[in-house]
Amino acid sequence: MSTSLNKKRTIIGILSIAFLAALLIAVFKEVERQLPDYQPDPVVSAETEHCIGCHSEKGNGKVITEQWKVSKHAEVGVGCVECHKADEGDIDGFEHHGDFIATIVTPNDCGKCHKNEVEEFTHSHHADAGMILGSLDNVLAEVVEGHAAYMDGANPAAASGCGQCHGSKVELLKDDNGEVMKSDDGIILFDPKTWPNTGIGRINLDGSKGSCSACHNRHHFSVEQVRHPDNCGKCHLGPDHPQKEIYDESKHGINFYAHMDEMNMDAKPWIVGEDYIAAPTCATCHISATPDQPITHDVGDRISWTLRPPVSEKVDAAQIKKFKKLGEELPEHFLSWEQRRDNMENVCQQCHTVKYVDNFYTQYDNMVNLYNDKFGKPATELYKMAKGNGLLDGVPFNEKIEWTYFYLWHHEGRRARMGAAMMGPDYTQWHGNFEVAERFYTEFVPELKEVIEEGRHDGKIKAANETEKRLDEILNSEMHKWFLGKVSPEEAAKRKEAANKFRDRYTN
Amino acid sequence: MSTSLNKKRTIIGILSIAFLAALLIAVFKEVERQLPDYQPDPVVSAETEHCIGCHSEKGNGKVITEQWKVSKHAEVGVGCVECHKADEGDIDGFEHHGDFIATIVTPNDCGKCHKNEVEEFTHSHHADAGMILGSLDNVLAEVVEGHAAYMDGANPAAASGCGQCHGSKVELLKDDNGEVMKSDDGIILFDPKTWPNTGIGRINLDGSKGSCSACHNRHHFSVEQVRHPDNCGKCHLGPDHPQKEIYDESKHGINFYAHMDEMNMDAKPWIVGEDYIAAPTCATCHISATPDQPITHDVGDRISWTLRPPVSEKVDAAQIKKFKKLGEELPEHFLSWEQRRDNMENVCQQCHTVKYVDNFYTQYDNMVNLYNDKFGKPATELYKMAKGNGLLDGVPFNEKIEWTYFYLWHHEGRRARMGAAMMGPDYTQWHGNFEVAERFYTEFVPELKEVIEEGRHDGKIKAANETEKRLDEILNSEMHKWFLGKVSPEEAAKRKEAANKFRDRYTN
Amino acid sequence: MSTSLNKKRTIIGILSIAFLAALLIAVFKEVERQLPDYQPDPVVSAETEHCIGCHSEKGNGKVITEQWKVSKHAEVGVGCVECHKADEGDIDGFEHHGDFIATIVTPNDCGKCHKNEVEEFTHSHHADAGMILGSLDNVLAEVVEGHAAYMDGANPAAASGCGQCHGSKVELLKDDNGEVMKSDDGIILFDPKTWPNTGIGRINLDGSKGSCSACHNRHHFSVEQVRHPDNCGKCHLGPDHPQKEIYDESKHGINFYAHMDEMNMDAKPWIVGEDYIAAPTCATCHISATPDQPITHDVGDRISWTLRPPVSEKVDAAQIKKFKKLGEELPEHFLSWEQRRDNMENVCQQCHTVKYVDNFYTQYDNMVNLYNDKFGKPATELYKMAKGNGLLDGVPFNEKIEWTYFYLWHHEGRRARMGAAMMGPDYTQWHGNFEVAERFYTEFVPELKEVIEEGRHDGKIKAANETEKRLDEILNSEMHKWFLGKVSPEEAAKRKEAANKFRDRYTN
Repeated sequence: MSTSLNKKRTIIGILSIAFLAALLIAVFKEVERQLPDYQPDPVVSAETEHCIGCHSEKGNGKVITEQWKVSKHAEVGVGCVECHKADEGDIDGFEHHGDFIATIVTPNDCGKCHKNEVEEFTHSHHADAGMILGSLDNVLAEVVEGHAAYMDGANPAAASGCGQCHGSKVELLKDDNGEVMKSDDGIILFDPKTWPNTGIGRINLDGSKGSCSACHNRHHFSVEQVRHPDNCGKCHLGPDHPQKEIYDESKHGINFYAHMDEMNMDAKPWIVGEDYIAAPTCATCHISATPDQPITHDVGDRISWTLRPPVSEKVDAAQIKKFKKLGEELPEHFLSWEQRRDNMENVCQQCHTVKYVDNFYTQYDNMVNLYNDKFGKPATELYKMAKGNGLLDGVPFNEKIEWTYFYLWHHEGRRARMGAAMMGPDYTQWHGNFEVAERFYTEFVPELKEVIEEGRHDGKIKAANETEKRLDEILNSEMHKWFLGKVSPEEAAKRKEAANKFRDRYTN
Repeated sequence: MSTSLNKKRTIIGILSIAFLAALLIAVFKEVERQLPDYQPDPVVSAETEHCIGCHSEKGNGKVITEQWKVSKHAEVGVGCVECHKADEGDIDGFEHHGDFIATIVTPNDCGKCHKNEVEEFTHSHHADAGMILGSLDNVLAEVVEGHAAYMDGANPAAASGCGQCHGSKVELLKDDNGEVMKSDDGIILFDPKTWPNTGIGRINLDGSKGSCSACHNRHHFSVEQVRHPDNCGKCHLGPDHPQKEIYDESKHGINFYAHMDEMNMDAKPWIVGEDYIAAPTCATCHISATPDQPITHDVGDRISWTLRPPVSEKVDAAQIKKFKKLGEELPEHFLSWEQRRDNMENVCQQCHTVKYVDNFYTQYDNMVNLYNDKFGKPATELYKMAKGNGLLDGVPFNEKIEWTYFYLWHHEGRRARMGAAMMGPDYTQWHGNFEVAERFYTEFVPELKEVIEEGRHDGKIKAANETEKRLDEILNSEMHKWFLGKVSPEEAAKRKEAANKFRDRYTN
Repeated sequence: MSTSLNKKRTIIGILSIAFLAALLIAVFKEVERQLPDYQPDPVVSAETEHCIGCHSEKGNGKVITEQWKVSKHAEVGVGCVECHKADEGDIDGFEHHGDFIATIVTPNDCGKCHKNEVEEFTHSHHADAGMILGSLDNVLAEVVEGHAAYMDGANPAAASGCGQCHGSKVELLKDDNGEVMKSDDGIILFDPKTWPNTGIGRINLDGSKGSCSACHNRHHFSVEQVRHPDNCGKCHLGPDHPQKEIYDESKHGINFYAHMDEMNMDAKPWIVGEDYIAAPTCATCHISATPDQPITHDVGDRISWTLRPPVSEKVDAAQIKKFKKLGEELPEHFLSWEQRRDNMENVCQQCHTVKYVDNFYTQYDNMVNLYNDKFGKPATELYKMAKGNGLLDGVPFNEKIEWTYFYLWHHEGRRARMGAAMMGPDYTQWHGNFEVAERFYTEFVPELKEVIEEGRHDGKIKAANETEKRLDEILNSEMHKWFLGKVSPEEAAKRKEAANKFRDRYTN
């Protein structure tokens, strides 16, 4: 019995210890992460050790080092020098305590490990965002909002505005002899007109396009952050492309913010339907993996319409036209809009039925077509006609109607289309269609009539007549004739009856 | 002594084990929830088992099943068939592998278990949101922004816009013979003009009104999500009813976002002051229980003013008028505005003193009355006069002043009133009163003068004179005469002195 | 051996218990915080005990007590009476069950413990926010949006709008004899025109300025809440100072929201780079400590430009001018703009290199100067000229151009400058520069031309000529002549070429 008792005691003892051990490990793991003095276990190469030796004492070096230490990069030994090492001959490379390094890390550098990501990115629309020279944006920043020669070409509207999303063309500071300038401690200096800049289409000194840290904030490079909808919101928000606001309004956003804790935001891999089921973020639909398709760093791979221009077209249309014109084959990575839609539908169908997705796309296509047919095409036709026949002069944005037309398609028209694309009804309606219609009927049409009158008065009779004729045709067409009061008595009666019913409703 | 020692050991052993057990359970419960492979324990009926058999493999079925498994519904055995079962004769019912089911679950279905909730909802203003036929919204979508006949009546502006909040009238796809169409696998097809739609006032095929999943997102049906302010923000945001933005600005919102973790968002029940003390959400004030009153699914039960129309009135006024006119008794669920205010004050008083709440309501009432008296009533009177006497034609939205008037009350006037209601000062002032005043003085008045001049020019002398006279009276009244420069010398002097003092202040 | 076994058992037993104890404490601490019935351990003075006796039963008293119990104040024995005790002679003091107390706690009260904080606050710009009498804001609320005499001076636009951020001048309710009114239970009553109010520059009955609870929400007084960006967003948001929105767009905001859990938001102290490294909040940059500088409650201590007025100047300029004029020494707490910039640069440099920060400030300064030089100064000069020479009358806001000018600097011009200050490119560009330019060219200039024409027509020939001449000079100057179509052929050609290149880009 004593033996038996001892045995029992021993068993209980062992079990206790086993339990305790298991428990301790579990709790330790959990608590460790939350402790302020939690020490991660980075792999530090000899060269990086050298950097950290000086830089980890105080200030930005300390913070950067700490951010890096908890990064995936640190886990696998990718440290300061592994990223910042410059190649011989790099114009922005400089000797720094024995290492030849550069301040800016470009896609060429990241691509040494992340080859696929950089390749996909490089042929994406994102990568071309920096080539805004010559676009309307450029005239806006250099002529309308600023002045090309102001402060020796500092171009502040572009430097603090456009370029911070689109990307600058990075340049070094040079002295009067054209020599690259360095600080007292030998660090090559960047032209403040062009840097700091992490615009997504930045044109780098090594010729590469883009800035990976546009999205992947240094030096954490945290996947949680990059998958968070706020991340895309650095650029995709505001009056002309409020994707962030639309997402936040949508059921997708509602579910995300309510269930953020269940999103496994730091999982690797992060596959919708497998690693998380609560909601999609921007990344889910446009970038991240589904059970059936891999991650892509070409954000256009799942987009079927371009909602950017005055008149929307399928996203591959311009490319097809261009290569046909050049007589060349389409590039290997070319995807037709149908393929891209299939890609997106596959994402949708992780949570929604095939029929639901089909019907959604019908609603969305209809909405884009409505915008195109009722406002986008007529406004564009009339605007181009007035520009072409001399009723408007050649200077952009010096006549009121130019602003009006721009708002119609670039701001309000996009909002209507994007609201429908991402199921944010307030953006489709109040920020979108309602304002498009207001802009068209209460500004564009009356301003065009004034332009016609002025033209006639200035002797441009033919141009005035031609434009007036087309405007009349459009206003008398099926969708616009209501504006002229041309409503059939039947429809008027029907609407009146409905309005009365409505009034009754609001009193019950 | 040995016995004593043994006893002690035994006691210590038992205590250890007891501690351990308690600890293990506590930790287990905590950790379990966080584990990615946490397996909930749903109660699955035989019929639902049948559904899940096929649907839980991949894609949307899998995700929906996983969402459902962690729901309260799953805990109590309410599964696929329990909700989706169709009644014989249901027009949208179809045989599906042995079950007669329907795609859309309506309030009639939910009401089988949630009787009270559905009853309350059904006589709420929310439930009527789908009857927008004949409202301004409808003219906007079908005439101004879109066109009733476009794409065979697809009505994209309503389908992707208005209807997604207000609710569509759900319809099935029919072939040329009027027969309901089915997919190859026998699933009844919905008309994409009308579905997907989870608008709160959706008119369902079974005649019921509403969509419970407008708020209670399927298939989680999570109370955390539905109590989160973002949830109401699906519709209650934007230029014409920015309740979400106002809440976010208010101290209520500030406290919520700072202390979200202490809100016990998944507690049942969830009584303010008992289960959480950090902040109220939209649900707290308008829906959820206090220690003194139950949950309500009629969101009007605590609202004393209607801030919707051009001129605000107490929320029960229209109903009283209607039933008086009909010679009928008020319905049983009728609440006077005073009762509704008492209900809301009871919510406020969970955190604020009676005096604080009284003073708040004085401020709020004053603000609504100011809007009514200074802008809402005069603008409405003048607008109706010009409509009535023929200065404006009968077509809505084809004259500039119609848009101006609409913005004044529907957008800016609501923002001013709603900002005051929910203590978001920026919405009261800069998004509200400031823009109301601007709209009235710099657009409405000059445009009305133009309309009067044109009318006179067109021979509508009497109408023009009548309208001009009334406009003059209004502009010469106490609150508006400043606009004509009619300020007493005393007041002018007082203001000048104050302005000088102000200038001094900004230099210290 | 038996002894040895016993020893072992004893050791194992003791170790087990020690482990258990340590574990229990750790887990207990963790779990305790999450339990709904977690009971903090407040220090309650006898007097406060007395208050809680009645007030903690139900309703607001219960909630306030619970909020207080988890506060730092409760931990150190600062309870109801310690804060609400009134001094003899306090006009708002009243006997309440044996204690002489006041409802409103002013900075004078808080300053008994928080001397430094109150002193710093008191000489900050924040503290003067309530003195808006005579400012434009006041004319807006009392004349334009409301009416000074409406509802016996209730001034609803100010009470629910301006004053809720700026602060009211608190007043008591008085009867016809000028006696302070009390409720039946002897509580002194506040005038609802002036309270509830927690505006930051509130003018209190004891002469003190400010309301600590403008930021430090009662009765939690939680540091998490006050460090959260939403907190500043109670006032710093919206069309005229969207700092909250700009922050949210910036990389600072993106990182904050993605890593909120790692911010140690309740740490004491809370030093950037030591206690948190993930992101800065508003508090980090403007208020909280760095390793090199202490917390400040004067939010101007790190600000070098004032972005408030029509034309920005360095933040100390007005103060220097004033004291020079008075012939007085600058006050002890005076900081030059260079000192303030050094302070902010020290914050920036916790995470960014010296060169990065230098270049950022060059970009920012350039942007402010561009706004000043191209729009702020010319518009202000022309506006003042037209006001001064009688083309515009003396009544503010009764002429369209007055609204236009106000929007240009007060709304859009601030957005452009603030966007650049905080690196929110969308606010710099689309909410800022783009709209400034639009306002200037399509509204301000044409409206000024009309004003000139009308003046000329009314016989104000000299004023009209003078203003027209200056307008012409400005429009013909380097930065504006494009608007007149005066572009050199070289530049036109260059731009055309760039535009063609652009068009090609968008088709690849």
